[in-house]
Amino acid sequence: MSWTLTPADLPDLARGAALLGTGGGGDPYIGRLMVEAAMREHGPVTVLDLDDIDDDAFVVPTAMMGAPTVMVEKIPRGDEAVLALRALERELGRTADATMPIECGGINSMIPLVVAARTGLPVVDADGMGRAFPELQMETFGVYGVPGSPMVVAGDHGEHVLINTGPDNRRMEWLARGAAIRMGGAALIAEYAMSGADAKRTAVPRTLSLGLAIGRGLREAREQLRDPVSALAEVLAPTPYTHLRVLFAGKVADVERRTVDGFARGKARFVSFDGTSTLRTSFQNENLVAEVDGVVRCIVPDLICVLEAESGEPITTETLRYGQRVVVIGISTPDIMRTPEALAVFGPACFGLDEEFHPVENTGESRVPER
Amino acid sequence: MSWTLTPADLPDLARGAALLGTGGGGDPYIGRLMVEAAMREHGPVTVLDLDDIDDDAFVVPTAMMGAPTVMVEKIPRGDEAVLALRALERELGRTADATMPIECGGINSMIPLVVAARTGLPVVDADGMGRAFPELQMETFGVYGVPGSPMVVAGDHGEHVLINTGPDNRRMEWLARGAAIRMGGAALIAEYAMSGADAKRTAVPRTLSLGLAIGRGLREAREQLRDPVSALAEVLAPTPYTHLRVLFAGKVADVERRTVDGFARGKARFVSFDGTSTLRTSFQNENLVAEVDGVVRCIVPDLICVLEAESGEPITTETLRYGQRVVVIGISTPDIMRTPEALAVFGPACFGLDEEFHPVENTGESRVPER
Repeated sequence: MSWTLTPADLPDLARGAALLGTGGGGDPYIGRLMVEAAMREHGPVTVLDLDDIDDDAFVVPTAMMGAPTVMVEKIPRGDEAVLALRALERELGRTADATMPIECGGINSMIPLVVAARTGLPVVDADGMGRAFPELQMETFGVYGVPGSPMVVAGDHGEHVLINTGPDNRRMEWLARGAAIRMGGAALIAEYAMSGADAKRTAVPRTLSLGLAIGRGLREAREQLRDPVSALAEVLAPTPYTHLRVLFAGKVADVERRTVDGFARGKARFVSFDGTSTLRTSFQNENLVAEVDGVVRCIVPDLICVLEAESGEPITTETLRYGQRVVVIGISTPDIMRTPEALAVFGPACFGLDEEFHPVENTGESRVPER
Repeated sequence: MSWTLTPADLPDLARGAALLGTGGGGDPYIGRLMVEAAMREHGPVTVLDLDDIDDDAFVVPTAMMGAPTVMVEKIPRGDEAVLALRALERELGRTADATMPIECGGINSMIPLVVAARTGLPVVDADGMGRAFPELQMETFGVYGVPGSPMVVAGDHGEHVLINTGPDNRRMEWLARGAAIRMGGAALIAEYAMSGADAKRTAVPRTLSLGLAIGRGLREAREQLRDPVSALAEVLAPTPYTHLRVLFAGKVADVERRTVDGFARGKARFVSFDGTSTLRTSFQNENLVAEVDGVVRCIVPDLICVLEAESGEPITTETLRYGQRVVVIGISTPDIMRTPEALAVFGPACFGLDEEFHPVENTGESRVPER
């Protein structure tokens, strides 16, 4: 079933995408402004369910890559992602039938909408991360056999780089990251071009509509003076992101953050309101692990989201500040992201963490909010 | 007039290319072994004079890029430059009629011969640097209007990166350098694809045969127990590299060298045999400036070459060692490399040097060797 996304949907989608960004993915605010501008000029965007696309359709995902700390300051010119898509079309000798997010969290929920508005292509309601991840090989597309390359990285001077690493998606990430760094720390990309059949087989479905539903749920809870976390749990329960656990409530006590090798890396410490308990998180763009009083409560690829305590507004790692009053939640990822093949690509070991993956529904603590 | 280059020519060419490398360009020894292997398998190589090529022929220069300190340790697999050329042909939709050096100094005198032997293409007796330079925008091709991109950088895992920066050759260098660094510090490239007419207009002519003549002259001088520097001066006098000046004779007293940002950067200090005089050089892959007792005697783009005092064997910056007994010479570059347009691309200011360019024939000291 196809539907139309209009400018009125964008604030909710941006809020939901920030939550699915699990701390990273880049602030969707700038992406939202870009989509609004593109829609003003070119009209709204058609969203297709995976079921709506032909098996032999040609789907070209588009995205932004870079450190979120850079992405909030280095605003794209606007046409880079379209240029990347066009260059990839030329390389592959085929015209795209649709674009798709690689990542439903953060700014990358928005970039394919910019492309869709500017080109008139529909956008597929699915993605390759089901959240945000920092690296390009960390996509379900690649996990289930779609090669990421050839891919294109486009910069804001009209330049582009085409990368071909055959089936080696890690090497593709390595070379693309180098290009993005030299383009100023952030760049626009087109990658994992695939058939409709491959999209159906490998993508995490309905993550654009999920972002929209999450954002709407948080907004309505705020309007109705309801607890945002309970509202969020209600939105998620019927989706493949079934389980929500409140991991912690308290204040930001310390943030260590550096922009290094093209990533925002660091850790944060939170102290409970009564001062008796401590949460520690570490992140590479996205939150990777949440440890309460020395016990791991949630770990990648499950989602760790820091929300403003009163409003439920998601806080990204690059905007964490001393003294913020927050509630930190864990959300279970869909089964397609928890298979052994998936954990081999974006499980804890892929981030240098020693801990094994344990589903948050078994390790997170309270099911209902406690504030 | 076309001629045939055989394995017997390679030791002389390697020696001459090491001299034209002016301290950099990468040790041609490894390149020589690669050409020998390719010629053993595929036969000798046809060399074409610029006059021999059609104006509408399609010439695709090939080369290696990277820090010479890396290039002596990270040996190419062998087919990377051919893969780069083939990828560039595909991008441009045209088949190469010939390859050509971008740089006649160092290992890049040899890489196009590897490509020529493996593909059966002829190689053009000309290049774009007339010596060696550390960066890809520093080519007469670009100085006189040929765009360097699209270009291809190929690594030793079969991966390649295609870079398109339109007419911006500095940005091309910046992105290609980043790719080469991520490919391990050295990679093979195809760039500045051009017509035969453009090659005739922009290339430094007959620099392959010059390298061969220099190497032969140095060898014969050694065999005949003649002074190598006098022999070299005789070889150069009738060429566009008319002037040779002996800048210094003495011992290496100190070398500071780091591999940084994909380059070998550093400086060296030499003390005269009687201890009364000091030569200081600085280099970015290649020697940039030679200062004797505080006075600049030779500066880029003129050639500064360090030779083993007894044998006249050229010493590259990455093999400079304490105690080596050397004679240091300056050689004038051809007029095509001394125009205002050329100096704007590879004059002293392009390397962060404060000094103006002064021709070595006016600033170098003695015309005849003094040892």
